[in-house]
Amino acid sequence: MEVLAQVGYRALTMDAVAAQARAGKATIYRRWDSKLDLVIDTCNELVQRRIPEPDLGSVADDLGEFLRAFATLLTGPVGKAAQALVGELPHEPELALKFRESFLLPQRDVLRRIMERGVRRGEIGPNAPIDTVGELAGAGLIYRLMLADEPLDTGFVDRLLNEALLPLLKR
Amino acid sequence: MEVLAQVGYRALTMDAVAAQARAGKATIYRRWDSKLDLVIDTCNELVQRRIPEPDLGSVADDLGEFLRAFATLLTGPVGKAAQALVGELPHEPELALKFRESFLLPQRDVLRRIMERGVRRGEIGPNAPIDTVGELAGAGLIYRLMLADEPLDTGFVDRLLNEALLPLLKR
Repeated sequence: MEVLAQVGYRALTMDAVAAQARAGKATIYRRWDSKLDLVIDTCNELVQRRIPEPDLGSVADDLGEFLRAFATLLTGPVGKAAQALVGELPHEPELALKFRESFLLPQRDVLRRIMERGVRRGEIGPNAPIDTVGELAGAGLIYRLMLADEPLDTGFVDRLLNEALLPLLKR
Repeated sequence: MEVLAQVGYRALTMDAVAAQARAGKATIYRRWDSKLDLVIDTCNELVQRRIPEPDLGSVADDLGEFLRAFATLLTGPVGKAAQALVGELPHEPELALKFRESFLLPQRDVLRRIMERGVRRGEIGPNAPIDTVGELAGAGLIYRLMLADEPLDTGFVDRLLNEALLPLLKR
């Protein structure tokens, strides 16, 4: 993940990974047949690091807790590795599939469950656009991380929540 | 832009650009000193293709017109070239600056002017979160293009408008 974050997918070599891991290249190849396999396994590692699902009794608290933790994750090496992969996704369908399965969908599922609990508690109306809100939460954070020149920090997360996500869910 | 869309920034060579343009490599180097200069000029080209600013008398119409046209632009070679650059932005500060200046800020400025006209006409309340709405409009489209596995089409743009952007602006 560190090498990926430093040089990107295309420039990543098994030699560089071996050097970073202080291992022989043969050791690396015994475990992974190719760079693609290695990077896909790295994507799976991203899942392991996904953030615990908060269940604090209110949508505002759960969304705040989850999105602040997600922002923290994204601003570390995981986010740099993810950014390094984005440009490759159109050319590498297998990588793209794995990236979505291991990185994007779990986050979106957590967001959906947070909002569904809010619907059951009556905090959120039954017609609230929860799919759109979930997508925009992820989009907002990732856009900040990868494209905007302003920081992905807790101030941004709070603004996103209070000016957009929570008002859209208000019944 | 086509070579950039096909192979990405890191794998792009002046040879490939010369071949695609049916020009000699010397011709390319006469115009651009380096790959970075060439790609920065390509970014500037993106500006030229930016979409005319609609002024149809209502925020809903202007946002719809602009975002549909932006989505169409993004789903063509310009979007592929932009995606190819994203992974390089952390490693290439000069490119990152130019990319933001030529590609992101003009779009955000158009969105802001559309909403400011709405405020002046009284369609939008003076405290509407127009910065956040503008950022989320761009984030939503670019996330769809680059990361989601669902299409960036007019159906998505209409849903984004009707379920998120316009409700947030309602006074």
